Amino acid sequence: MSYESYFAERREQQLGELKEFLTIPSISALSEHKQDMIKAAEWVAGKLESAGLENVKIHQTAGHPIVYAEHLHAPGKPTILVYGHYDVQPVDPLNLWETPPFEPTERDGKLYARGATDDKGQVFLHIKAIEALLKQEQQLPVNVKFCIEGEEEISSPNLLTFLNEQQEMLATDAVLISDTSLIEKGKPAISIGLRGLCSLEVSIQASNTDLHSGTYGGGVPNALHAMVELLASLHDKQGRITVEGFYEGVPELTAAMHEEFEKQNFNEEQLKKTLGLSTTYGEEGYTFVERTGARPTLELNGVWGGFQGEGTKTVIPKEAHAKITCRLVGQQDPQRILDAIIAHLHANVQPGVTLKVKPGEKARAFDMDPSIPLLQTAADAYEAVYGTRALFTKDGGSIPIVETFSRQLSAPVIMMGFGLPDENLHAPNEHFNLENFDKGLLTIVEFLKRV
Amino acid sequence: MSYESYFAERREQQLGELKEFLTIPSISALSEHKQDMIKAAEWVAGKLESAGLENVKIHQTAGHPIVYAEHLHAPGKPTILVYGHYDVQPVDPLNLWETPPFEPTERDGKLYARGATDDKGQVFLHIKAIEALLKQEQQLPVNVKFCIEGEEEISSPNLLTFLNEQQEMLATDAVLISDTSLIEKGKPAISIGLRGLCSLEVSIQASNTDLHSGTYGGGVPNALHAMVELLASLHDKQGRITVEGFYEGVPELTAAMHEEFEKQNFNEEQLKKTLGLSTTYGEEGYTFVERTGARPTLELNGVWGGFQGEGTKTVIPKEAHAKITCRLVGQQDPQRILDAIIAHLHANVQPGVTLKVKPGEKARAFDMDPSIPLLQTAADAYEAVYGTRALFTKDGGSIPIVETFSRQLSAPVIMMGFGLPDENLHAPNEHFNLENFDKGLLTIVEFLKRV
Repeated sequence: MSYESYFAERREQQLGELKEFLTIPSISALSEHKQDMIKAAEWVAGKLESAGLENVKIHQTAGHPIVYAEHLHAPGKPTILVYGHYDVQPVDPLNLWETPPFEPTERDGKLYARGATDDKGQVFLHIKAIEALLKQEQQLPVNVKFCIEGEEEISSPNLLTFLNEQQEMLATDAVLISDTSLIEKGKPAISIGLRGLCSLEVSIQASNTDLHSGTYGGGVPNALHAMVELLASLHDKQGRITVEGFYEGVPELTAAMHEEFEKQNFNEEQLKKTLGLSTTYGEEGYTFVERTGARPTLELNGVWGGFQGEGTKTVIPKEAHAKITCRLVGQQDPQRILDAIIAHLHANVQPGVTLKVKPGEKARAFDMDPSIPLLQTAADAYEAVYGTRALFTKDGGSIPIVETFSRQLSAPVIMMGFGLPDENLHAPNEHFNLENFDKGLLTIVEFLKRV
Repeated sequence: MSYESYFAERREQQLGELKEFLTIPSISALSEHKQDMIKAAEWVAGKLESAGLENVKIHQTAGHPIVYAEHLHAPGKPTILVYGHYDVQPVDPLNLWETPPFEPTERDGKLYARGATDDKGQVFLHIKAIEALLKQEQQLPVNVKFCIEGEEEISSPNLLTFLNEQQEMLATDAVLISDTSLIEKGKPAISIGLRGLCSLEVSIQASNTDLHSGTYGGGVPNALHAMVELLASLHDKQGRITVEGFYEGVPELTAAMHEEFEKQNFNEEQLKKTLGLSTTYGEEGYTFVERTGARPTLELNGVWGGFQGEGTKTVIPKEAHAKITCRLVGQQDPQRILDAIIAHLHANVQPGVTLKVKPGEKARAFDMDPSIPLLQTAADAYEAVYGTRALFTKDGGSIPIVETFSRQLSAPVIMMGFGLPDENLHAPNEHFNLENFDKGLLTIVEFLKRV
């Protein structure tokens, strides 16, 4: 039976299984979901087992568990290690979800749920592709390992230790990851670059209690004034980040790179329409694709302080808070960037208030040479299924562990993404376009057969 | 019996009654407390009745009711109308209250509860002072009217209509209000100036959904960036408000006025210690007392957008919000100020985002001539009880209706405050110093006897 027929026959049943996976609220950032993390890990282990994988094991870590499995019966053939994650982002603001985040719902050929595209849906494709190969051919064309973790959305704090301890078990010729996106519907992509990341939380305390704006207004520091002034100082009017030393290690875009970005022929008008933007925005002198693929950023992810309720409250808030993340490129060093931002904040904060900065996650950017044969094989597989050869792109997101993986296992990383850029990952109404569910299964099978 | 003995005998009982009043969560800003507003109005009416006032009536309005009462048996003597309010501010952040806001608790000679000083405690003093006079002397030395409303904390939207409709019933020679503060413990004050007020809410929308900061970061507008930049543009580095035309109608401080402020001999070091400030703050060239008494302000009362939870969420928020209030002085026109701020916001907002501004409350500043005899009588009354003559001060707060009251009833307004500036009004752990509870009762009796 052709793989098309094989998957078509099982479509409803397999979608039902994925929905089951998506009902588990495995939010790694929130400690109240600890049990759900275990449940999700067990669900993955169960599916790997029934797909025909061997030595399936849930490895405990200091945080959430890691699921391992293998199928090593292709002597002389390369080994491919599939990495993915079963954890998902938080879901607030909950009221903006059209259907509840953990009640998967199909609408217009899309499956809506938290984790649908990032990354449960894409992990599921790999399990089912292996299952199909084993059912259809009773063997695999390559050796396969799975390593599915539960802490990707919180920067994988325990994966490095696991990689170090299990170096032998995890040894591989290439790492295969599906946690990125097509350029747009019908235009596949293989990411050969990921931005790095660093994060920090900023607090300002101005007084020991909230104060009445009549009695004290104009005479005491206001934590919110100090905060907005400080945060505004991080960018100039041209969208450039003003932190001293921030751009150290950022490669200048060569004419050749400009040209490569041009080739993507990115539809900016479509993007604006989809997101409801009247204009894109960012650093002067760069296109949207360059800004998000090859330039670093400093983004405010959250800011809050004072009264947020109904009506008016004439209060001078005693404290204000902000959450910041940066995306890093090239040789930018996450620790040096954090140090530079912290120095900027201390140098620019209004005198007389107390500033506290808590550094968070850190990950280097990652880049790969597209001439590696396995990357070309992956592009061929896309072409066979999508009718369009995959382009090699730089992805704006960060999978912090990719660079570590590549270094620790001395293996190239093949990022075959099946998401779409407007699938609301990390936002309300996350979804997975089922066209890429169907084509994703076939592309993975095609790739493994060609390796 | 002396009034000292009279009040001393009844102290526990009267404090018990006040605590009963303070258990009613009469938050006028929150619609869920509608029934509590009625309960508080009925409580006030009951106490006025049992104090010996006549024609006690709860007047319905389009919002919360107004309680009226009178005692008009002193022919040939002036009429004094007591104004106050039974509504209170919201209580969040609730977790910062040492004891629950609606469970009145005595600690160190202070009574802690929302409304203890603003304004239930001070309204209560007037009811009990009248009761004492009637019990001790079977008559009042003046004619007295009470007008106690339930919408002061939301800018009294229905009081003006009531004043217009009931002009005859409310006719008076002077309005007596206790809703302000002493300068500090033992240093009484009569406010002869109140700042005006205007308020607005600002929203910025940047896209139609929250976006992933990896995929889109650096290439699309971030609502929080636009908001902090816009809000930071409202002040310059010297603490001056940059809105064009904002200072029109603000009287320049004369040397004589400087001197008057100096006389208050305000203890700035003590203030800093109490509030945990390393420095006061504000417009260059003015002292703390001048900044809060005679200068206008523009304060951020609340700012929010994006992720406020535990951990990191790499989101570009689609929207951001802010609440702003201004305190106004002299001839500043609230409507013109609002117009000027709105024009500033539209002129300075980052291109490509959608700005919405919702204007709120408006009230003019109010000033009175301290040579009016009744004001001097009030100062005498303080001197008799506190041993220190009250100073005539400018108060930073706003009682929006004071100016309207004075204009509508063609009567001076005597503001005899018994609060203290550090009693956390509008903040967690609001309280009322019981020394001023005791002395307040005596001062009001003393004043009414001297009129």
